[in-house]
Amino acid sequence: MTPIRFYFDFASPYGFLAAMQVERIDRPMIWRPFLLGAVYKQVGQSPLEHPLKRDYVIKVDAPRLARRMGLTLKVPQGFPEHSLPPSRAFYWIDDQDPAKAIAFAKAAYRLYWLHGRSTADPHAAAEAAESIGLSREAFLAGIQETDVKQRLIRESEQAIAKGVFGSPFFLADGEPFWGSDRIELLSTARRDALA
Amino acid sequence: MTPIRFYFDFASPYGFLAAMQVERIDRPMIWRPFLLGAVYKQVGQSPLEHPLKRDYVIKVDAPRLARRMGLTLKVPQGFPEHSLPPSRAFYWIDDQDPAKAIAFAKAAYRLYWLHGRSTADPHAAAEAAESIGLSREAFLAGIQETDVKQRLIRESEQAIAKGVFGSPFFLADGEPFWGSDRIELLSTARRDALA
Repeated sequence: MTPIRFYFDFASPYGFLAAMQVERIDRPMIWRPFLLGAVYKQVGQSPLEHPLKRDYVIKVDAPRLARRMGLTLKVPQGFPEHSLPPSRAFYWIDDQDPAKAIAFAKAAYRLYWLHGRSTADPHAAAEAAESIGLSREAFLAGIQETDVKQRLIRESEQAIAKGVFGSPFFLADGEPFWGSDRIELLSTARRDALA
Repeated sequence: MTPIRFYFDFASPYGFLAAMQVERIDRPMIWRPFLLGAVYKQVGQSPLEHPLKRDYVIKVDAPRLARRMGLTLKVPQGFPEHSLPPSRAFYWIDDQDPAKAIAFAKAAYRLYWLHGRSTADPHAAAEAAESIGLSREAFLAGIQETDVKQRLIRESEQAIAKGVFGSPFFLADGEPFWGSDRIELLSTARRDALA
């Protein structure tokens, strides 16, 4: 079965909500953090640029969806900031152990969106890494490696090349799904295609 | 029970999808067409301004959601155009008979999004009016009345004043819900509030 590709930015509330539930889908999944900022440079402004929409997303809609999952959302300090440290970290870990990279992604997401830590702070990312058994020193050095930095740039470029324009974004057998509210459709996507 | 306010633009595919299912909600509902263009003047550009997003919405996501409802979407000729004729028509009919205005809205939406008729064409709106038993001549004269034109402007201004920034948009006891994919939450909104 072709794996689903799951694109997300750590600074995205709906990316967080997706990360907390995608493992319910009974298909292999490749996690791919990327930088939404790079996408917005290509497709125009962020959907959260308007105060009305940002307030709706951050104060109403995302907390409401989180509550339905039994979670209490806390917006990251400094939001919206970039998410370079966890995104680079993901690929540094992924090079060694892809399953561990996913465990890191979930731990980091919980720190950002349940505990309100800054997505731009390398020390918050290091804390997530420690929580899954990685050495803090190796981690902080690792995310400064040129190869790791270039991998993230390459992954973001590839996401854009595949038409990814938001977070979360899924590609299932080439079919795009945008938003945590489309996860339910992912489970049935293949059945639809075969029907 | 306070009625839910349901805001929509006839040129909005998700507004169409909402109109086809909102009557499942067991609460009184006030339908309020408005002009999204007026909103975008306030909150910035349309979310469909970018070709990537527009293609995703029009060619992938909205048709997919429609299929799950047993409907085959056909994008209105000239999309995206304004929807002045049906929006004015709605209020012209609403002045006489609110239930009939809703029947008209559903008939018009089906003409636009299942048969691909232009939302800007008064003759398409007139056809929807005839299909629910209204006189074509009275209808075409009615939507030119100054009072009707002003009512639509007033309703669009009021929507903006209440923070409406997209279509469909719902207000339930003051709580905002944006998108056809939030209809499911509307049914439980009051229960959440009382819990």
